[in-house]
Amino acid sequence: MRVEVLPCAGAPFLPYLEDKLVIVIDVLRATSTMVTALANGCQAIIPVLSPEEALAKRLETPGALLGGERQAVLIDGFDLGNSPFDYAPEKVGGKRVIMTTTNGTRAIRAASEAKAVWMASFLNLESIVREIFRLKQKASIEGIVVFCAGTEDRFDLPDTLCAGMLIDALGPDIGLNDLGEAARMLYQISKNNLLDIIKQSDHGKLLFKLGFEKDVFYCSTSNILPIVPVLVNGEVIWQMGGL
Amino acid sequence: MRVEVLPCAGAPFLPYLEDKLVIVIDVLRATSTMVTALANGCQAIIPVLSPEEALAKRLETPGALLGGERQAVLIDGFDLGNSPFDYAPEKVGGKRVIMTTTNGTRAIRAASEAKAVWMASFLNLESIVREIFRLKQKASIEGIVVFCAGTEDRFDLPDTLCAGMLIDALGPDIGLNDLGEAARMLYQISKNNLLDIIKQSDHGKLLFKLGFEKDVFYCSTSNILPIVPVLVNGEVIWQMGGL
Repeated sequence: MRVEVLPCAGAPFLPYLEDKLVIVIDVLRATSTMVTALANGCQAIIPVLSPEEALAKRLETPGALLGGERQAVLIDGFDLGNSPFDYAPEKVGGKRVIMTTTNGTRAIRAASEAKAVWMASFLNLESIVREIFRLKQKASIEGIVVFCAGTEDRFDLPDTLCAGMLIDALGPDIGLNDLGEAARMLYQISKNNLLDIIKQSDHGKLLFKLGFEKDVFYCSTSNILPIVPVLVNGEVIWQMGGL
Repeated sequence: MRVEVLPCAGAPFLPYLEDKLVIVIDVLRATSTMVTALANGCQAIIPVLSPEEALAKRLETPGALLGGERQAVLIDGFDLGNSPFDYAPEKVGGKRVIMTTTNGTRAIRAASEAKAVWMASFLNLESIVREIFRLKQKASIEGIVVFCAGTEDRFDLPDTLCAGMLIDALGPDIGLNDLGEAARMLYQISKNNLLDIIKQSDHGKLLFKLGFEKDVFYCSTSNILPIVPVLVNGEVIWQMGGL
């Protein structure tokens, strides 16, 4: 199987996605937050591109909450930010959340042509790997494309390390593009040191500066949530079995 | 000093460049070829964006040769391809070359606002490092931005390793963005193994397939040419002293 890793949602040369599984990674913090929200009983997350689209979408989705960030902070008039700690059971249990983030939700929308779109983070990586092995036995996909959502279309080290952890877990028999190979190498030399490297990354340092230290620690924790969020009809839901 | 590494010329969020030194890296093969051409007596390389612009430029540059590639091969009607072996002394000695390549010349043009633009490759890396230390003593630049020209705006492992070699040589007292940190880590674990990794990279494999094995071996060779190509008035020339 071939795994291609792309550095950002804005990558201008997207491969053909229709027969592929796309895995979106935005460790700090969109996909970590989505995984957490679904684990906490959130019914669905509806990714949209802008605060305006979120407000319009709410008109047709009674009872939905608005969540997301711009410049890493809560959007004026929104119910929830982009911190996983905003998405506690008592807030999101049984609810839909319409969500817009600078990078993560854009990456999900860019992937919408794919055969399947799953959301990964360190929190749920083991479950993602298990589902990929299950899917491979059905042999219904032609390859995996990993979207590292990144920050402002830049290379993002936390996302790349998470992609590397995924690739490492898939074993040696996969073909990789250059960024996939780099991700594997970076993960292999960092795996005992992930939190430190994520803290020192551009996005990690920004979140520390803004007082979100707790988010950085939490989002750097591996394999604590057995959730595979899947994009189905424009909504991110927890669907066992994936495809 | 801060060193930012950007993955490609198409990076949509360019930092402020006017007080910076930009170092353009396109290991396979544009900057390696430029360094070689200048070492072989070429007077200047004029980077242009398209074959059409090259033809127009020749009308105002009597005696100039046309060089470059599209899809890694010679452009119809051009004198030289993008292989360093095309730029032998008997061909380019004393001549100007108007050059267009898919990624490298575009990166150079995107950098034209910078205070200084230098071209680096493995071939001339030691000289680039020496010039940076000389420049730092004059303290006339606010930082370095490394453009990895890449392939079709994708992350390119050979360019990133070359950026990592540069960063490694600059020592520990520099600030880095995420891609700079990744480049340093990747170089440090690959430095005894560079040729193998470059051969296995996406661009390396493409050049092998097209019969350019010799180019890959040559462009992976470190520190054999004491040249610092500098962009001056739209032309890449060999100017000792840099700024």
